[in-house]
Amino acid sequence: MKMSVEPTWAETIKNLRRSEMDRNIEHLSPEDLNQWQAELLQSTINRVYERVPFYRKLMDEAGIGPEEIKGLEDITRLPFTTRQELAANYPYDHFAVPLKDIIRIHVFPGVHERPVVRGYTRADVLARQELVTRFLKACGVGPEDIVQICLERGMAVWGEELRQGAESLGAVVIPPDPVSPANQLLVMGDFKTSVLITTPSYGLHLLDWLRENGVKKPLFLRRGIFVGETLTDSARRELEEGFGIEALSGYGIIEAAGPGMAYECEARDGLHLAADHIIAEIIDPESQAPLPPGEEGELVVTTLSVKANPLIRFRTGDRTKIIPEKCPCGRTTPRIAPISGRTDELLVIRGVKLSREILGKLISQTLKEREVSFEVEIKTRRHLQTLEIKIAMSPDIFVESIPGLHQRLSQVEAAILETVGLPVKVTFVEATSRNG
Amino acid sequence: MKMSVEPTWAETIKNLRRSEMDRNIEHLSPEDLNQWQAELLQSTINRVYERVPFYRKLMDEAGIGPEEIKGLEDITRLPFTTRQELAANYPYDHFAVPLKDIIRIHVFPGVHERPVVRGYTRADVLARQELVTRFLKACGVGPEDIVQICLERGMAVWGEELRQGAESLGAVVIPPDPVSPANQLLVMGDFKTSVLITTPSYGLHLLDWLRENGVKKPLFLRRGIFVGETLTDSARRELEEGFGIEALSGYGIIEAAGPGMAYECEARDGLHLAADHIIAEIIDPESQAPLPPGEEGELVVTTLSVKANPLIRFRTGDRTKIIPEKCPCGRTTPRIAPISGRTDELLVIRGVKLSREILGKLISQTLKEREVSFEVEIKTRRHLQTLEIKIAMSPDIFVESIPGLHQRLSQVEAAILETVGLPVKVTFVEATSRNG
Repeated sequence: MKMSVEPTWAETIKNLRRSEMDRNIEHLSPEDLNQWQAELLQSTINRVYERVPFYRKLMDEAGIGPEEIKGLEDITRLPFTTRQELAANYPYDHFAVPLKDIIRIHVFPGVHERPVVRGYTRADVLARQELVTRFLKACGVGPEDIVQICLERGMAVWGEELRQGAESLGAVVIPPDPVSPANQLLVMGDFKTSVLITTPSYGLHLLDWLRENGVKKPLFLRRGIFVGETLTDSARRELEEGFGIEALSGYGIIEAAGPGMAYECEARDGLHLAADHIIAEIIDPESQAPLPPGEEGELVVTTLSVKANPLIRFRTGDRTKIIPEKCPCGRTTPRIAPISGRTDELLVIRGVKLSREILGKLISQTLKEREVSFEVEIKTRRHLQTLEIKIAMSPDIFVESIPGLHQRLSQVEAAILETVGLPVKVTFVEATSRNG
Repeated sequence: MKMSVEPTWAETIKNLRRSEMDRNIEHLSPEDLNQWQAELLQSTINRVYERVPFYRKLMDEAGIGPEEIKGLEDITRLPFTTRQELAANYPYDHFAVPLKDIIRIHVFPGVHERPVVRGYTRADVLARQELVTRFLKACGVGPEDIVQICLERGMAVWGEELRQGAESLGAVVIPPDPVSPANQLLVMGDFKTSVLITTPSYGLHLLDWLRENGVKKPLFLRRGIFVGETLTDSARRELEEGFGIEALSGYGIIEAAGPGMAYECEARDGLHLAADHIIAEIIDPESQAPLPPGEEGELVVTTLSVKANPLIRFRTGDRTKIIPEKCPCGRTTPRIAPISGRTDELLVIRGVKLSREILGKLISQTLKEREVSFEVEIKTRRHLQTLEIKIAMSPDIFVESIPGLHQRLSQVEAAILETVGLPVKVTFVEATSRNG
């Protein structure tokens, strides 16, 4: 099979208007999709082997050269990459383009000691924006809509991309601003919001608020689009009945294609993958062996369009399966089931991922103690999860004045809030002696 | 004097390339600037009188018709508007265009009971973006720069506009992400950030962190641009020496032109007003009488380019003066001195404005008490201001279990954080009886 080295994707984008392109991409025959993905995969592998020492080393170690990737079926011969490796290769070792081609750099707290840095070329920014637009269009957003986005600080990048996507569809957008649930609902009624975009938990939180405080004005919502967390069947039902909406969801990871990576259509039965930007595989998280469609395991993604920071077989840590049946909506892109859990120890709170490692680092940095022992509990109050951290301290600390203790607690809380964008409640408990 | 009703500004923008336009606007003769502003003022007044019932009512009450505004000198005949009135006329009563012409709606917690809502047409979004670009260009930002923006959640709109401005100048931008000072500095060194944009207090906070933890890698900063708070002489000196930078500052209000409303030039002696978008007056806050250049009073602004939500003689509450001398940089636009304080009771913390009123409302809502008595203290730790609120409670509350009390405190803290985007420390104190 002879394939061109350079992607045909960029030309295709130029030649097709967006709506035609979306219809095209979402309705390819399995053979055409396979061919398309294989071309993009090959050019991605060529590029990273040539330009990214990190990937060249991984591939050399695995004894595979770029010329051996002849079709999609060869993807399983490539090595995996992990979040840990992304953090370990901070700052530049993933960049496939020189800094002069980068227009934006996002820094994420990451889940390991070093931050995760993602660079974007102009093409990357446009590709992500295209994807979010396609996602929102599949969810029925159009120029007649008033779209209100309610997302936390930790999801600010998501919020910004969703704003751009909705604006590019001609909708009026109320972007995420820090206002109370009361004011969110007030504005929702007064400005006749038709589409709410939020996390399932914040959606339920707003619904609770509405029930407790009574409805003063009617709402005009017709649709809810839920991101950042899995939309469970029961949450969907509650949100649909409570708000009188149709609830849809999307899925993405910050490291790859953003919020438009996979999205529900009107059939609301699984999430369609943006197959021109992502190849998805499911593996057994233990043996790392590929699993067939229909079997649940860990989602692994390879990016096809990303210029600055391509990802090869990135282990997302999210548990799901490929849905083998054809979708009644007519789209032929592969579908995944809603994420059912994680294959690792990461916490996902209000759509924000974090690890015990990063919490430990923040606590010991703030308290200036080399090692701290602590327990993390996740409390849910009115559907919103909050972190509660109990730090074991030697009894000496309780000799400190109450204001002194209070100040130290506040410092830890502030450091965690500032760094991961999540509110947290910290308390000190007395460390029990090991020999006791 | 015969003047056209429609502004010539839109045509001008089309006909001039940006750099030519900026040079033009920033270097007009006093007579030309006067003529330009008078034209825009007249068309603004015509438009608001025709389309905004709120302003028509105010003008009718003041007994002034739009035809009486013949030149700039007539501005003092127009009525003032205040933040209180903006909040009271929630939701639509300020809109000068129909909702279909709006593309974006920002909701701010506001400083009064109701949120402040600002709508933007496409032209408004572009005009604000132009202004931020002009501001950053005056501060020397260019395509060779790597610009890192560190702003809090409460200043998210500022952050977004500054990102767009810097990107449009061809710079690489690291937008505000929730990462710790340690990681901000790590990234600053590793990605060779040349321009830091932040608040003066966060800049000093980063500097403290750097001093305490030692410099592991060199920084490459050449300039700091400080927004949201006044850059005092002593803070400027400390930041310039500490980081080895040139420090510049900008000033704007969220209700009007955004972060590019006024900005320092290389002379660093006062802030140049974006005179094609804003008319500035100084009044005596007590008598409301206009004050001559050089005398300090309250800054009052009238917007000239805003389509959706024009402001007429808006009392900013900020204390400053017009600098009458010509700036050595050659720009002929009027300059104001750095803000020296406020003429009202509003608190400004980390660039975010808030009132006792809004705090009281949040506290009583959260605790479900009709009236609460509380004290607000602003504590500064490592240059960062934090709100501390002491709520007086009847002694009954202390009968509650410690976890119960703790939970209530957390609820109040979470409500304030969520609504105004500022971290806060809340404690309960015993209410003292009125009869002693």
